[in-house]
Amino acid sequence: MSTCEFESLEKSLESHLPEAELAEVKRILFGRETQRLELPTCAVKAAAEREFELKGYKFDAAQEQLRPPKAVRVGLVQHHIVLPTDAPILDQINAMHSRVGEVVEVAAMCGVNIICFQETWTMPFAFCTREKEPWTEFAESAEEGNTTRFCQELAKKYNMVVISPILEREELHSTLWNTAVVISNSGNVLGKSRKNHIPKVGDFNESTYYMEGDTGHTVFQTQFGKIAVNICYGRHHPLNWLMYSMNGAEVIFNPSATIGALSEPMWPIEARNAAIANHCFTCAINRVGTEHFKSEFTSGDGKKAHHDFGHFYGSSYVAGPDGSRTPGLSRTRDGLLVVEMDLNLNRQVSDKWSFKMTGRHAEYAEELKKAARHDFKPKIIKE
Amino acid sequence: MSTCEFESLEKSLESHLPEAELAEVKRILFGRETQRLELPTCAVKAAAEREFELKGYKFDAAQEQLRPPKAVRVGLVQHHIVLPTDAPILDQINAMHSRVGEVVEVAAMCGVNIICFQETWTMPFAFCTREKEPWTEFAESAEEGNTTRFCQELAKKYNMVVISPILEREELHSTLWNTAVVISNSGNVLGKSRKNHIPKVGDFNESTYYMEGDTGHTVFQTQFGKIAVNICYGRHHPLNWLMYSMNGAEVIFNPSATIGALSEPMWPIEARNAAIANHCFTCAINRVGTEHFKSEFTSGDGKKAHHDFGHFYGSSYVAGPDGSRTPGLSRTRDGLLVVEMDLNLNRQVSDKWSFKMTGRHAEYAEELKKAARHDFKPKIIKE
Repeated sequence: MSTCEFESLEKSLESHLPEAELAEVKRILFGRETQRLELPTCAVKAAAEREFELKGYKFDAAQEQLRPPKAVRVGLVQHHIVLPTDAPILDQINAMHSRVGEVVEVAAMCGVNIICFQETWTMPFAFCTREKEPWTEFAESAEEGNTTRFCQELAKKYNMVVISPILEREELHSTLWNTAVVISNSGNVLGKSRKNHIPKVGDFNESTYYMEGDTGHTVFQTQFGKIAVNICYGRHHPLNWLMYSMNGAEVIFNPSATIGALSEPMWPIEARNAAIANHCFTCAINRVGTEHFKSEFTSGDGKKAHHDFGHFYGSSYVAGPDGSRTPGLSRTRDGLLVVEMDLNLNRQVSDKWSFKMTGRHAEYAEELKKAARHDFKPKIIKE
Repeated sequence: MSTCEFESLEKSLESHLPEAELAEVKRILFGRETQRLELPTCAVKAAAEREFELKGYKFDAAQEQLRPPKAVRVGLVQHHIVLPTDAPILDQINAMHSRVGEVVEVAAMCGVNIICFQETWTMPFAFCTREKEPWTEFAESAEEGNTTRFCQELAKKYNMVVISPILEREELHSTLWNTAVVISNSGNVLGKSRKNHIPKVGDFNESTYYMEGDTGHTVFQTQFGKIAVNICYGRHHPLNWLMYSMNGAEVIFNPSATIGALSEPMWPIEARNAAIANHCFTCAINRVGTEHFKSEFTSGDGKKAHHDFGHFYGSSYVAGPDGSRTPGLSRTRDGLLVVEMDLNLNRQVSDKWSFKMTGRHAEYAEELKKAARHDFKPKIIKE
């Protein structure tokens, strides 16, 4: 079975394990079971017709006396590119708008309050080619680009917060960025969050296109909760998650683009560890499919030149602060994951597990400052 | 099936999944396959006679031109308490010495260079009772206690580095500590590493017995590699792992004592995330079994008083820097996990994935310092 064909871990377990063992395996792998979320028939029907996977789950929290439940529905969208990568750029972008637009319409039927798309969702993930043209032409203004305008329409129409990760062209500094634009459900651009850590993985070096972000660890206070966006490679950096959480994020989105051969065994670990360590929800989103490019390129691995980067394995999921997580979306299909979460769970788990209170952060700040210096002397005991 | 009976995740998958799917499931769950390590027949026979599980795995690294392979074999020991918790204290300690001694003998047959026992391995994990007596009588001097002397004998006899996590009584400051004593293969006490984060989980508060450690993030340079010890609850704190790694640790041990109802879904996540994020090996060790106490105690959860804390689920494992991990030991049986690792893998993965180089640590030190202050103003954007 090739890695592009294998549909999902969850499906495999459910098809083969006896019921009693399946329950134990799921408890160990996924924690406290997330309940299925009942979704409207019209949404289920529309998703089937539009040929994408639709799944719904729910994280409960205990009832409190002083705070009402704080239920929010988030939507995670994963998708293939729509047109071939050598189609006219505007056609490619418009086709992607149209595809994602029909997914968002279904999300609205499901009562989604906050939706997040995958990293640089309007374009192929072409950074592996190392070509500047035509890929940099996909870059748009975060404030006034066509894609932002398109998302503002969606936001207003559906009363939905939209997180739109794009390749940003900032005319002000003649600079490209990897940026998530956050649009309020009013339709206003609330702000943007730039990718804090730029991958240098083997020869795959995105700093050919953009540098480390300068927006720090901004948190966006929306009507539905406090959210932040940790883009792709930033999920490997625990301090990045920590600082979003320290700034108050209740839900941290991680729009990504990553392939099986590289990162698949890390995928279920990192965003979930961040949810546990920081007493918050994390949403991991990855694109799907294999994208073919006209020019061949090498990958600094001694192998022959080729025309694709590999298989993007989807598997988008949501992790909760109590160590539980939803099953993942498919490894091969477009999909929408609708997850209802009671944000009260964050403080409940924090009050129980106390990782912040026991964190000794002031001491770590001192230690880290010393450790980061060129003349740092590690504390090593020898015989 | 009760949670105390379920033998292991790995066994369940291997019994039921068709071969091709099993390979994909294992790849996603465990990463690049760790090879089985051939163990000597005498060791396999002795383990069977002594009724403990013996498993061996191997992490390879690529051949380099300038550095020879740096193969080291580590041993992880998980075990039940031997005598009932109301037996005379010295008998309990001696029985544990004897049991662990026979496991270490098998480890020596397997060529283990560095062995690590579970947290407070000479005693029941009695902190749930909140009684001081008789449990504090288990505390010993790290430098001159009987248990340290016993471990020094093992170390010399088998030319093995021994990590012995005990309840430490420090006469100097009339203080108890939760401490790992590190004994060189020469038999000398190399030093000690005290638990940096003390659990406050619900009503389970170990600070009744000891406070946060004062030994920082010491790394021990042994003949076989640079090692560190992150005790139990410290595995929930990504900064704790980071600082051991920044001080040079190639292998970080996490001797633990934790029960299924509390932490089992987090267990496969945290130590493994630390191995990935820090480009090092991590070794997670948990005790096994249910320990009964004479006095009943409550657990601050509204439930009736009871005589045990719950089921310690073993499942000890080793995680590598490339996202791969070994299968876990049993959830129910005593066991010895022998793992050979080529420490060259750490730098190879670091050179490929670059998490340290892209870490922006100096900036995080500044940010964290501000965030830890009482007058910190989070960076929140509102409409």
